[in-house]
Amino acid sequence: MSEPRRSPCPVACTLDLLGDRWTLLVVRDLFVGKSRFNDFAQSPERIATNILTDRLKRLEEHGIVSRTTTDAHAGRADYSLTAKGRSLGPVLKAVADWGLNNIEGTKALMAPKTPARHSD
Amino acid sequence: MSEPRRSPCPVACTLDLLGDRWTLLVVRDLFVGKSRFNDFAQSPERIATNILTDRLKRLEEHGIVSRTTTDAHAGRADYSLTAKGRSLGPVLKAVADWGLNNIEGTKALMAPKTPARHSD
Repeated sequence: MSEPRRSPCPVACTLDLLGDRWTLLVVRDLFVGKSRFNDFAQSPERIATNILTDRLKRLEEHGIVSRTTTDAHAGRADYSLTAKGRSLGPVLKAVADWGLNNIEGTKALMAPKTPARHSD
Repeated sequence: MSEPRRSPCPVACTLDLLGDRWTLLVVRDLFVGKSRFNDFAQSPERIATNILTDRLKRLEEHGIVSRTTTDAHAGRADYSLTAKGRSLGPVLKAVADWGLNNIEGTKALMAPKTPARHSD
């Protein structure tokens, strides 16, 4: 499923899962209430669809995202954060806060749909 | 110096700088008091020296790390976090906490040398 871990360090292990330029943006989109593949793809960063497919699959494999389809729309999946996924709220908030405080010209465009909760 | 930003989102902009598997590990090492190139290279994750060189350069360019040398040892640099670098403490802590709570077998091996401060 994934490469062997580099060390037992929780920072290294978390980065093995989330340490790239895209994964936390998908998590961000889920936090603000987006749930469809096309919605994620249309975010301003324009994630490539092959990267998006890969990241959603990885997040689902790690229990961070759940994917549901209905009989009526078998090909149209809805994605949402699991409790484990929502527990990424503090990570997302710390990253966003650091950017707002330290990178000129950044602005919080998207308010979370529901407050980030550490766990259910 | 870097690619054009993908959006004004503070998460995206922070990930443009720190969103990879290695950069926060160098920041972690600096937080626990490591200051020399060889010390970073000898951390358990065994970062490749070309990646380490690149990341230290990028962190210095963005004012997160400062590099000092003495006349006596002109080739031997000491690296340390600037105030801006230390303000990454909450990001590092959120990532570490998430890993400890959600990834089996992780353990906090390294205690910070000084408490993570948000700013000076």
